[in-house]
Amino acid sequence: MSQPAQTAITPRRDQDFPEWYQQVVKAADMAENSEVRGCMVIKPWGYGLWETMQRQLDGMFKATGHKNAYFPLFIPLSYLAKEAEHVEGFAKECAVVTHHRLESDGRGGLRPAPSAELTEPLIVRPTSETIIGASYAKWVQSWRDLPILINQWANVVRWEMRPRVFLRTTEFLWQEGHTAHETAAEALEETNLMLGIYEKFAREHLALPVFTGEKSEGERFPGAVKTLCIEAMVQDRKAIQAGTSHFLGQNFAKASGIQFLSRENQQEHAWTTSWGVSTRLVGTLIMAHADDDGMVLPPRVAPAQIVILPVTPKPETREAVLAAVEQLASDLRAQSYAGEPIRVEVDKRDIGGGQKSWEWIKKGVPIRVEIGPRDLEKGSVAVARRDRGPKEKAFIPTAEFVAQAATTLTEIQQALLDRAIAYREANTLKIDTKEEFYRFFTATNPEKPEIHGGFALAHWNGTREVEDRIKEELKVTIRCIPLDAPEEDGRCILTGEPSRRRVVWAKSY
Amino acid sequence: MSQPAQTAITPRRDQDFPEWYQQVVKAADMAENSEVRGCMVIKPWGYGLWETMQRQLDGMFKATGHKNAYFPLFIPLSYLAKEAEHVEGFAKECAVVTHHRLESDGRGGLRPAPSAELTEPLIVRPTSETIIGASYAKWVQSWRDLPILINQWANVVRWEMRPRVFLRTTEFLWQEGHTAHETAAEALEETNLMLGIYEKFAREHLALPVFTGEKSEGERFPGAVKTLCIEAMVQDRKAIQAGTSHFLGQNFAKASGIQFLSRENQQEHAWTTSWGVSTRLVGTLIMAHADDDGMVLPPRVAPAQIVILPVTPKPETREAVLAAVEQLASDLRAQSYAGEPIRVEVDKRDIGGGQKSWEWIKKGVPIRVEIGPRDLEKGSVAVARRDRGPKEKAFIPTAEFVAQAATTLTEIQQALLDRAIAYREANTLKIDTKEEFYRFFTATNPEKPEIHGGFALAHWNGTREVEDRIKEELKVTIRCIPLDAPEEDGRCILTGEPSRRRVVWAKSY
Repeated sequence: MSQPAQTAITPRRDQDFPEWYQQVVKAADMAENSEVRGCMVIKPWGYGLWETMQRQLDGMFKATGHKNAYFPLFIPLSYLAKEAEHVEGFAKECAVVTHHRLESDGRGGLRPAPSAELTEPLIVRPTSETIIGASYAKWVQSWRDLPILINQWANVVRWEMRPRVFLRTTEFLWQEGHTAHETAAEALEETNLMLGIYEKFAREHLALPVFTGEKSEGERFPGAVKTLCIEAMVQDRKAIQAGTSHFLGQNFAKASGIQFLSRENQQEHAWTTSWGVSTRLVGTLIMAHADDDGMVLPPRVAPAQIVILPVTPKPETREAVLAAVEQLASDLRAQSYAGEPIRVEVDKRDIGGGQKSWEWIKKGVPIRVEIGPRDLEKGSVAVARRDRGPKEKAFIPTAEFVAQAATTLTEIQQALLDRAIAYREANTLKIDTKEEFYRFFTATNPEKPEIHGGFALAHWNGTREVEDRIKEELKVTIRCIPLDAPEEDGRCILTGEPSRRRVVWAKSY
Repeated sequence: MSQPAQTAITPRRDQDFPEWYQQVVKAADMAENSEVRGCMVIKPWGYGLWETMQRQLDGMFKATGHKNAYFPLFIPLSYLAKEAEHVEGFAKECAVVTHHRLESDGRGGLRPAPSAELTEPLIVRPTSETIIGASYAKWVQSWRDLPILINQWANVVRWEMRPRVFLRTTEFLWQEGHTAHETAAEALEETNLMLGIYEKFAREHLALPVFTGEKSEGERFPGAVKTLCIEAMVQDRKAIQAGTSHFLGQNFAKASGIQFLSRENQQEHAWTTSWGVSTRLVGTLIMAHADDDGMVLPPRVAPAQIVILPVTPKPETREAVLAAVEQLASDLRAQSYAGEPIRVEVDKRDIGGGQKSWEWIKKGVPIRVEIGPRDLEKGSVAVARRDRGPKEKAFIPTAEFVAQAATTLTEIQQALLDRAIAYREANTLKIDTKEEFYRFFTATNPEKPEIHGGFALAHWNGTREVEDRIKEELKVTIRCIPLDAPEEDGRCILTGEPSRRRVVWAKSY
């Protein structure tokens, strides 16, 4: 076995994927666990990424007629119980507020004041269907009040016993769209529209190819009639559900009393949808694109797309170098990439050039540019791309670099997408026998203990029983029933019963 | 008494100011109370205003070197107790999470599961000094790690017994900056810098003249060494504290253990600051600018600066009118006002023109434009400004209107600021005798029972006793000790003792 090159992250992905992930999050300085169990601190570099994603998604929501609003953090206990399936799914692990005041405990500490116990406990929202439904019930009287197309950016809380930063945290940030419509057809159209936006955002902004499809009954959102999702493959070949769009039928409208007088002068219940993506997307991005040297950011969402590193070995040339750096930063910021001014950071910190360069490699900034006194003389810059080896540098005339910067960012974005597509294709197999299916998900390579399996496209008889058995035996689930898959004769992977369509099976986060 | 003209809002400001405020919030469709006591629902028009303010403030924070991050919603009970004054100020009325799971109560409902009681209760953050301090303590080792310049946009909860939408709600949205510095001087400079940003934002964006100054001891943030604030006057002549910037000295650094190895190789505690504004600014804006016909929005922060109302009386001209409207909207959006593209909304709803126009008046949109078939023929538009009478319309050639739009918005912005300055000046008096002082704050006009008093600039002996007595007798407090007021010999309004400076006294929200 040949000795692999030294990497910035230890362990490597193929040695210990979960630990590699934690180390990348740390090395990229994106987030850390807080002392409050399950809650993370999102550090500026991680939050900057979320802000970029948020701004771009928000633009896509608004371009399709949605407006933002804000609803209460707290949900009265009784609201959760209104929708029967919903309460089963969400009323379990959540933060319960029982008191509204503290008092001295007589031993120098504090305690919840017994006199300030709430008559009805409040739940910190795990999702807002019920509390938003209560408002819509008041706002909607007639078909003229529909559709309501509202989105909310908010924090939500679902108590997690096995938290993992960004992927599964007790508190996380997300957006939740909640819409109400006159007809089932309109609500279904909305559900599909938003799934399309998520797919496009994943592909074009995050460089993530995703499967789109419908969830099976066992994986559906509690209370939904239909849950659509985008599913991404990450580098241990597992799936991550990266966004969902739910057609809620009239279930929540009935539970909340969202009724309207129809065009035919009848009292009817509205048809509602909800859809969301969360800071889980950040974790997905890391697991999908990072490498053994740290984070690799798709340029479109990188908080900084280009970092300029002045090289100032001698005091006498320092001023000239810094002036050139500021000029370059300003020239680059005047360029536009993907419809936004290029985001440039200048790192003037007085630390070693090697350390500085490696910090930005680990943070995943798409392009690093060094300028020193000798580059100044030659009128060129030393350019390194994060999608290539850490030591690969090109020396490019400064003006040319500026003129090409947007093109280079486009190339990097495309390279990451191509790589992710190739990886997913290499690890997505059509499987037709039970034996092969079981081997696919259980065979291990002792040198890469964490990485095996992938996505299996296999036939299924459509029953919950088969799903449950495969889940129990292999920890493998149906990630989605693809929306646009061609019909094809086949036989259920487990029972041999006839089937007309392959579904996507995988282990998942 | 002459009969006043009919107004869109009942009651008028001078009849019942608190009720007028509630009615404006409702008529402008900005927010409403939720069924969760003290928590509001911020509706799209109100939230759109907050988003605009947020984006502009965020730009100002970033331009001064701050980055955003995100810290946990929950604070362990013991953290609150770390800073002695802080615990007194904040540990009282707050939401206390005591359980992390619900279970069936055996009667068809739910209850907090006794088996899932938390060992240590969690507090929903009322402010984040303590939880952020815990992170900074880990991040800071050496003077090279300083300054830390971080801001957070978040929701916070302070249990309110007498809530009032936007002004005082149990949950509200805000930003909280938290910085740590090497020296007291740097931290003081930061405190002043952020106060300056708030003052500039209030004046230039919100058209609100504010007094800036320091809080007296009785009004200081619990745990701060010095609290600076901006104080606005609203139309019942009361004061609203619209933003604060705190110099925290080393108090919180000591409580949280934020220590660093100094340039002199000594372990020292950092010097910290915190500063914030909240959705209370929205309430301030309403109370300061709205009139008896509803909201009046300063153009710079209006979610829509211009609304276009197509007039389509006949089906045969409808298409031509709508085409002209879209063209006009697109021409206006290509114009820039105050560094941003002009924000235009088109209201094509099929409802009566009068009702539609009045809805936008009540929402406070700065410019309304009507286009009908006859305007099309003449190549002109009918333009109404919200800072003028509701029936005042100008007929302006379309191209001219487009070319002047940004100038008109500038004029409206200035008109609102001028009006607010004039109102504040008319109601800010230098007062030198106790008798006059008491009369100023107690005299009432039976026709305007809610509106009396104003800001009194009066001398004070600097003691807490005088403050407390005036607060008790008049419900009047020192709003701030102006930072830049000229020194001047005088005598304390209550005791007659010598004083060197006037301070600002008022009733307040």
